[in-house]
Amino acid sequence: MSGEASGDGVRGGVGVGLIGFGTIGTGVAKVLQQNASVIEERLGFPLRLIRIADLDLETDRGVDLGDIELDADASALIADPRIDIVVELIGGYDVPRKLILEALAAGKHVVTANKALLALHGREIFGAAAEAGLDIAFEAAVGGGIPILRSLREGLAANRIETVLGILNGTTNYVLTEMESTGEAFEIVLKRAQDLGYAESDPTFDVEGIDAAHKLALLTTMAFGAELTFEDIPTEGIRGLLPLDFELAKDFGYRIKLLGIAKCHAGPDGHDRIEARVQPTMIPATSLLAKVDGAMNAVEVQGNAVGPTLYYGAGAGEMPTASAVVADLMEIAREIERSGSGPVAPLSYLPEHIAPKPFVPADELSGRAYLRLTAVDQPGVLSLLMGAFGDEGIGIASVVQRIEEATVSGTVPVIVLTHRTSEAALQRALGRIAQLSEVTEPPRLIRIEEEV
Amino acid sequence: MSGEASGDGVRGGVGVGLIGFGTIGTGVAKVLQQNASVIEERLGFPLRLIRIADLDLETDRGVDLGDIELDADASALIADPRIDIVVELIGGYDVPRKLILEALAAGKHVVTANKALLALHGREIFGAAAEAGLDIAFEAAVGGGIPILRSLREGLAANRIETVLGILNGTTNYVLTEMESTGEAFEIVLKRAQDLGYAESDPTFDVEGIDAAHKLALLTTMAFGAELTFEDIPTEGIRGLLPLDFELAKDFGYRIKLLGIAKCHAGPDGHDRIEARVQPTMIPATSLLAKVDGAMNAVEVQGNAVGPTLYYGAGAGEMPTASAVVADLMEIAREIERSGSGPVAPLSYLPEHIAPKPFVPADELSGRAYLRLTAVDQPGVLSLLMGAFGDEGIGIASVVQRIEEATVSGTVPVIVLTHRTSEAALQRALGRIAQLSEVTEPPRLIRIEEEV
Repeated sequence: MSGEASGDGVRGGVGVGLIGFGTIGTGVAKVLQQNASVIEERLGFPLRLIRIADLDLETDRGVDLGDIELDADASALIADPRIDIVVELIGGYDVPRKLILEALAAGKHVVTANKALLALHGREIFGAAAEAGLDIAFEAAVGGGIPILRSLREGLAANRIETVLGILNGTTNYVLTEMESTGEAFEIVLKRAQDLGYAESDPTFDVEGIDAAHKLALLTTMAFGAELTFEDIPTEGIRGLLPLDFELAKDFGYRIKLLGIAKCHAGPDGHDRIEARVQPTMIPATSLLAKVDGAMNAVEVQGNAVGPTLYYGAGAGEMPTASAVVADLMEIAREIERSGSGPVAPLSYLPEHIAPKPFVPADELSGRAYLRLTAVDQPGVLSLLMGAFGDEGIGIASVVQRIEEATVSGTVPVIVLTHRTSEAALQRALGRIAQLSEVTEPPRLIRIEEEV
Repeated sequence: MSGEASGDGVRGGVGVGLIGFGTIGTGVAKVLQQNASVIEERLGFPLRLIRIADLDLETDRGVDLGDIELDADASALIADPRIDIVVELIGGYDVPRKLILEALAAGKHVVTANKALLALHGREIFGAAAEAGLDIAFEAAVGGGIPILRSLREGLAANRIETVLGILNGTTNYVLTEMESTGEAFEIVLKRAQDLGYAESDPTFDVEGIDAAHKLALLTTMAFGAELTFEDIPTEGIRGLLPLDFELAKDFGYRIKLLGIAKCHAGPDGHDRIEARVQPTMIPATSLLAKVDGAMNAVEVQGNAVGPTLYYGAGAGEMPTASAVVADLMEIAREIERSGSGPVAPLSYLPEHIAPKPFVPADELSGRAYLRLTAVDQPGVLSLLMGAFGDEGIGIASVVQRIEEATVSGTVPVIVLTHRTSEAALQRALGRIAQLSEVTEPPRLIRIEEEV
């Protein structure tokens, strides 16, 4: 905790105040509680959630508040000397703008996920933070939990960025994915998305591309140093797309995605010129971006040194967005505690928290397996092989005997695809098979990983 | 430049010395020169490459050295008071270990891309850096230009990491992709990869999975705080895979990738246990990772808050790797100049370098377009429509008239896929079409983006 803001309620650590206890705010409280130990192993000190301000004091968010104070007084939270960092998660324009400026004026660092606010009033807010010498962090504003802003700002900092484009809105990507896979009309799919909670009851911001334009405005400034607001970006939404369009797109080798696209070109006078737009776009079906389905987001960044890169993850939701907010809190907290804690630990964990950990014994692992066996091509051999698996309780999903690849010496490849089995059982079955005189070569095992 | 290391050869800025002027070293020199202005717009001061040490003083690397000194004396470079940060890019184990320890002892920060060294001697080197209070950065050691280490260390720092897995070696991914698409044998494809420069003349490190195990060792420590070396990781390479395996994998709905896989499980006693291995693996053909082809890399990270995320880009090569090295240089330089420069600019560029930039006029943009027109179903209408495009010089790639979707009112959808055309010509053609009495609804335009 910084000297000035240090109060008597906190022993060590940095104090956090949360304004807005809705979906994201609840996620932030959960992450700070559930991951407290790993956060401290990386920072060297705790992040303490001191108090929360929200108008709704009744709803049970499923969070055990313990000592955390909850009331409706955001200004008192900002003024609370125990609080070093104010997290603004209420959304909208006017109230959060006032609260963020109030927090900066009170000497508090700010974390926000409010892309609409930053895309409209960014200049004023970043200016106020710079003038006060305070941090403002907003990783959660674009791409939810994907660390795309950090990657652009630090990981790719050595590049002239040429292109930033991507699927920046999960709601519309869900609708487009569903329209494509079901052949249903826009209105039917939108209604279902609303019923499932993927779309707001007023879906305008998402469906008309405005949310994507907010995010693209931030990305465009960060990529090219171009000052603009989202109102500068030509924006077209996904209404009016027909099932026929998806069918034809497929025939032509494309998929339809709502993309935010920003590029930097050299103009006729040699100076940079910006291209930025949000629009439903056909992209090659073979591209990585075309495989980003459902409510997921992905951003592609092309730099003059690094070439094409892509960042993929959940673009919204309680926990993914909270992941980004708490990463910002950790970064600012590290700055606050800097004299004691030093910069980021190179191996992510502080040296004293890196220790040998036991490995899972190999025979406790389990999964499906692909096995290529080579056996003599005789009646009864297949049955022998299958018996080796059956005796170890291993289920077989598929067996293929490739007669057409039989060799002159009379052997034939037999491919076996197992159901999930323990490594131990698999190794025992392979031991049995190795002892069969009908098997002429060592089996080739390729393990299968379904969860990628 | 830091006070102690400040020499008279440099006016402002941080001094960099480069040990190793091979492929990556050449890339670093190029990025520092070509992107000098954008680097300074983000940092607020220049990064100055002062001198380079390499045994080969003759080869023309295509870099104009200007004032940069090139000689074979790495120790003199380390001792040079003008140099604040030493970049080690010579590869191998013993010599770089000695040089890095020498640089740290001389009070110099270190950047390296040497995963083999860190995977084997990491404990000693990180310990020496921590003791000296100096930075050691190594983003380029894993995933080339992909900012995967920063993402794991900072962007996802709020998460308990559950899984890190990925395609960590471009050479083997190139070989596997080629084997799959051509049906050729391993040895033939490897030979071609060597001829094209994708594989070393001694391909053992890549083909046997050792390079991937080096990288996985670093990822495993950073993800889980687990201390290990690459020798702890069971490693299997790609030799012995047959064309038949790829064929069957496809039949079963899989693709074969060489994956590094690390997971953290709760053991029977509730404590963490690690699973880590490098092996050829079948993964669902529908997964994003399965689409990572050729020499590209991708890493998937699953966190308990953020869920699944994926990071994709070039895993090797002169300029992508240099992108990561220079990002590390910028981060350390910012720390060195800290009192004057402050932390990372929130919008990536310093405020004084963010300015309005002209937009490319919309009618100068160009691309292919998909158009859905609705016209009366009469002879000659198609010719009228095509004439509107022809008159504007727009080439037509495909026309589909969907008779089966004709309406009772006698209209029919006509889908047109154009060749590349300027937006201006397209808008003029659409203006012509709008005036045709045979066209009954406004055209629907979906633009096509091929470069994703």
